[in-house]
Amino acid sequence: MAGSTFGERLKMTTFGESHGLEVGVIVDGVTPGVELDEAYIQVQMDRRRPGQSSVTTPRKEYDKIRIVSGIFEGRTTGTPLCIILNNTDMKPSAYDDIKSLYRPGHADYTYDQKYGIRDYRGSGRASGRETAARVAAGAVARKLLEKRNVSVLAYTKEIGGIRCETFDPDTIERNAVRACDPVAAERMIKHIEELALEGDSCGGIVECRISGVAAGLGEPVFDKLDAELAKAMLSIGAIKGIEFGTGFQAATMRGSEHNDEMGADGFKTNHAGGIIGGISTGADIVFRVVVKPTSSISKPQMTVDVEGNEKPITTIGRHDPSICPRVVPVIEAMVCMVIEDHYKRQAALLD
Amino acid sequence: MAGSTFGERLKMTTFGESHGLEVGVIVDGVTPGVELDEAYIQVQMDRRRPGQSSVTTPRKEYDKIRIVSGIFEGRTTGTPLCIILNNTDMKPSAYDDIKSLYRPGHADYTYDQKYGIRDYRGSGRASGRETAARVAAGAVARKLLEKRNVSVLAYTKEIGGIRCETFDPDTIERNAVRACDPVAAERMIKHIEELALEGDSCGGIVECRISGVAAGLGEPVFDKLDAELAKAMLSIGAIKGIEFGTGFQAATMRGSEHNDEMGADGFKTNHAGGIIGGISTGADIVFRVVVKPTSSISKPQMTVDVEGNEKPITTIGRHDPSICPRVVPVIEAMVCMVIEDHYKRQAALLD
Amino acid sequence: MAGSTFGERLKMTTFGESHGLEVGVIVDGVTPGVELDEAYIQVQMDRRRPGQSSVTTPRKEYDKIRIVSGIFEGRTTGTPLCIILNNTDMKPSAYDDIKSLYRPGHADYTYDQKYGIRDYRGSGRASGRETAARVAAGAVARKLLEKRNVSVLAYTKEIGGIRCETFDPDTIERNAVRACDPVAAERMIKHIEELALEGDSCGGIVECRISGVAAGLGEPVFDKLDAELAKAMLSIGAIKGIEFGTGFQAATMRGSEHNDEMGADGFKTNHAGGIIGGISTGADIVFRVVVKPTSSISKPQMTVDVEGNEKPITTIGRHDPSICPRVVPVIEAMVCMVIEDHYKRQAALLD
Amino acid sequence: MAGSTFGERLKMTTFGESHGLEVGVIVDGVTPGVELDEAYIQVQMDRRRPGQSSVTTPRKEYDKIRIVSGIFEGRTTGTPLCIILNNTDMKPSAYDDIKSLYRPGHADYTYDQKYGIRDYRGSGRASGRETAARVAAGAVARKLLEKRNVSVLAYTKEIGGIRCETFDPDTIERNAVRACDPVAAERMIKHIEELALEGDSCGGIVECRISGVAAGLGEPVFDKLDAELAKAMLSIGAIKGIEFGTGFQAATMRGSEHNDEMGADGFKTNHAGGIIGGISTGADIVFRVVVKPTSSISKPQMTVDVEGNEKPITTIGRHDPSICPRVVPVIEAMVCMVIEDHYKRQAALLD
Repeated sequence: MAGSTFGERLKMTTFGESHGLEVGVIVDGVTPGVELDEAYIQVQMDRRRPGQSSVTTPRKEYDKIRIVSGIFEGRTTGTPLCIILNNTDMKPSAYDDIKSLYRPGHADYTYDQKYGIRDYRGSGRASGRETAARVAAGAVARKLLEKRNVSVLAYTKEIGGIRCETFDPDTIERNAVRACDPVAAERMIKHIEELALEGDSCGGIVECRISGVAAGLGEPVFDKLDAELAKAMLSIGAIKGIEFGTGFQAATMRGSEHNDEMGADGFKTNHAGGIIGGISTGADIVFRVVVKPTSSISKPQMTVDVEGNEKPITTIGRHDPSICPRVVPVIEAMVCMVIEDHYKRQAALLD
Repeated sequence: MAGSTFGERLKMTTFGESHGLEVGVIVDGVTPGVELDEAYIQVQMDRRRPGQSSVTTPRKEYDKIRIVSGIFEGRTTGTPLCIILNNTDMKPSAYDDIKSLYRPGHADYTYDQKYGIRDYRGSGRASGRETAARVAAGAVARKLLEKRNVSVLAYTKEIGGIRCETFDPDTIERNAVRACDPVAAERMIKHIEELALEGDSCGGIVECRISGVAAGLGEPVFDKLDAELAKAMLSIGAIKGIEFGTGFQAATMRGSEHNDEMGADGFKTNHAGGIIGGISTGADIVFRVVVKPTSSISKPQMTVDVEGNEKPITTIGRHDPSICPRVVPVIEAMVCMVIEDHYKRQAALLD
Repeated sequence: MAGSTFGERLKMTTFGESHGLEVGVIVDGVTPGVELDEAYIQVQMDRRRPGQSSVTTPRKEYDKIRIVSGIFEGRTTGTPLCIILNNTDMKPSAYDDIKSLYRPGHADYTYDQKYGIRDYRGSGRASGRETAARVAAGAVARKLLEKRNVSVLAYTKEIGGIRCETFDPDTIERNAVRACDPVAAERMIKHIEELALEGDSCGGIVECRISGVAAGLGEPVFDKLDAELAKAMLSIGAIKGIEFGTGFQAATMRGSEHNDEMGADGFKTNHAGGIIGGISTGADIVFRVVVKPTSSISKPQMTVDVEGNEKPITTIGRHDPSICPRVVPVIEAMVCMVIEDHYKRQAALLD
Repeated sequence: MAGSTFGERLKMTTFGESHGLEVGVIVDGVTPGVELDEAYIQVQMDRRRPGQSSVTTPRKEYDKIRIVSGIFEGRTTGTPLCIILNNTDMKPSAYDDIKSLYRPGHADYTYDQKYGIRDYRGSGRASGRETAARVAAGAVARKLLEKRNVSVLAYTKEIGGIRCETFDPDTIERNAVRACDPVAAERMIKHIEELALEGDSCGGIVECRISGVAAGLGEPVFDKLDAELAKAMLSIGAIKGIEFGTGFQAATMRGSEHNDEMGADGFKTNHAGGIIGGISTGADIVFRVVVKPTSSISKPQMTVDVEGNEKPITTIGRHDPSICPRVVPVIEAMVCMVIEDHYKRQAALLD
């Protein structure tokens, strides 16, 4: 593979640049005969789309998807689903003045080093726009997971040093930062608005909880369930780390503390985060990822141009001060793909 | 794939259980014509083998490897290298009393759930013993990286809450915990010896630094270099998290702090950990992983038997109180595989 | 993979049904910086498109492609090329009367058995229409092969028992059946026209000659160059067999006849068809495929309906009496993909 | 992959050279809990091993296999099976005089072109010896197919122009050439013995019949069942072509003849060879392959040395005048792998 394909039995291949004509995805390996329509997928697209609240970029992409193939009379046919979005609000000219400058924190320099050519309009392929295609694919996987009673829930845990102290699942989709604590959410929103005025951005932490996964999923030794979830998460541009269960805190724990004892009713604790030896335990799978501060800021920074001369740069354009709220549906989409794929692999093994 | 194969153009497939006859690996895609012998690989095996110091398991595996194929007259032929180790110190009877009990923190329960059958002798395939095969494969990759002047160095950063305060690369292989700070190393060793007396274990953090990697490696969008390193790391049983560059600390940083500015001499900082947009920047690649406390402890714990009855359990056997020292060469091996593979993928892209 | 992806380092993933909205392909792993435009690809599309001559289906698909991604300022970026065709001449209603009947020779029955659901409009995904996407991808590969001076030429060798007796490469694109012998071509065309009147169809043989391939391509032991070409060819619906070099005639030859002796100027013969041990010899790669008679005929046949009742059937619709002329560009496209992919794999091996 | 791995959900990776220490295979993805022992596999090994009759090479490899991993208490564990054979009758010195000569029909020249280095002892990795590992893996697949009531039967159809006129399955394992007609078998044996005296060899045709395969197996569009069988067959060094059902004869047939009509009892004919649109129809899958004459002959031939100088060559060594009898179990092994793999893929799709 050359990097644009993900999954083994349920597989997606994405295409499209930030400011190209269209962005989309092919999903192959979909269970046939499942009811699916564009409206179901659109719900997830709308959770990711820009301009949905005061704390996200005002770029207006309605992200209206169309299913081009793989559906017949309202049901999946088992052949590839192709789902496409038009890019309707392109302003490539906005990028003209920085086409010869490498924006700090962006993939401008690395793309040039890799390919020797770079679509500088809005980061091209490296743009977060590519993740819209993932969300569409993830919605298909989510549909398949419904019959398995698996639910995937991601939410903001921390932004700019402000942490959620409570966990209220009902509040998540009701606040603009998708935090699980309504009080912390208010403070986060205020913080982001202040940063926006300063032309700066901030990082955060998103947690994900997967419930209802049967024990026994995951392929030892390299394709462990946590290994594949980690790859899925780190494949999202802004994510710089992941931890399962107690995570980095395990560094200071003892075996007698960290081991999850079992009882007649199952595991008594879940320090492992629902995965042991790379295989699901049947407990909730829990992980957290760190989301770096948005690279695009309007504060002036130093960089170099393509000839290596030092130059100041100010990134204009339309950007989210915190990536957390909009990365939540992307995380869920990737998780849905991984879990459904592993169900299918397990079915193959046991057949 | 069914999980025992790793890599795309440089690929390894491992086999073998903890207490089976042999453990080994096939490495395919090796550059032909490269000088290689068993002694070169053995050096890495000896870094991982049990019984090398007071803080590791006394299980005596000399881990003497043999190269069964793929070498002709002292050079690689480009055909699969098969490297095999005999298991010489098997005491499967030691596990007889726990064959019907699920050890807390172990993959006993999850393997039973996945396969419906379990080789209970020393964790079977889930044992750390499988990583010996990875180290052998990694040594082959390390050899290939030599001509690229890439060096891979992992070391213990923290054990049981004791952190390294200095970084002295020369001390790493000279202390039993492979810490980068000789003073902290002494304290760590003392701590581990105390835990061993208590029949307990502790977690830690290992850091890895990869130097000399050319800018431009990594395949967007899913096979990002950090995504594949994350998968490689989480595929190691004891590792529960990974972070690149500033890692989880980025959650509290601003974009104006986290962005790595560029100057005429390259990046001024390396908060990104050497990878931006999934592609190497040319700076050192730096990541840290959290290593959970060894699951096998002799302190009594509660668990259930295969029929679901609650039972106390005391894991006897021969185990390392801290996994850090011996996981260091495993981490390096996996990293070598990933980096060399990505060099080959980049060569394919540009050809 | 779930079957809609082909290739390792140069990879295509197709989507789309015969009578869906759009048909297309994602090509990943394309060398960056190569000049490419829609016109270059359109040339190949026009060779495959329906209605190009008296002997092909009058279905009017202008098969105008659009490149949706992966090109910037006239050059490839190294990111996925997505190429899409609209389906403009859909008459799904023409298939209404056969939606509950399994057409003999068609995949109607097997699709129902596999998926439990079937898009009966014009064979859906099993239609030859899917190969339009392959031709688009193959044109990209052809472009990459230009710099290697590799040329791929397929042509009709036999139709309905009429065989080419001469080989004139210049005549191939000048006659409606793409035969390499202008005299035989005339007879073939006449034969096809007669069959069309009878509502019948006929089979044939297409030969392919690949020139300029360097010695040393092909991956032992499973991914041999001939093995992958064979898979590529048999993945085309109408092709039922393949033979390399002397092919089935080798069954009656002796080793002393079949072995290709070498001399100072290279191989003295080419019974092997340019591949020995799965690796290219540097001589022309030559193979032939057998193309079955078009399944869609208007002569009445017996079949069963979806409930298993015997019923007569007459396939109306618009079909080619011989598939040979239009399968030629599809064969070339698949060959281009395989050869370019193997160049890239070889580059990875040696890097 | 670098070519030594085959399969998706049931996967084998082989290693080993003709005159190396050991040859073997890792089989991954095996259904857990299946009874399997070395004796079961040995039966297939004995069908392929040298020296089993007057018409095969006298090289004495008892091909005694050992299962190194993946079995516990007589049952498969679902983890990789590694099966190894020692090479016990190596006479590499026999090859000393030809180490600088390229044997006609052999992969000597192409391996040198590909790798720049070549293990000249008995063809190294290109030797038919590698297929012993495939037979071991195929035996595992055959075991898994037993529960599905699938049977795979290959047999010699033609050798040196002598064709079988009758089909008697019981005679196949009772004659030295594994022909399906006992009278033709006698003539074939006589012919081979005469060729052996002349120091020459001959080609042939092997047919394979797969019974009991459910309708619905095969992955459109690239991973068609016939496409993957074709790849599997052409990956065997001596095989130069394959045809399904009526095969090349279809070139002279009409659609009204070739189409398999359906009736209440299923297909009335089987011109398609059991696969339509790449998916099994439920009828027997039937294909034929052409086996080239053994390249190693003792008749003198012309070739070049590694410096390009023309030289005469006489291949001594121990070789089969016809490859057909011993390739039969290799063909069956590859077929078993493909069919079982596709069952598992279908299970994944529908799950």
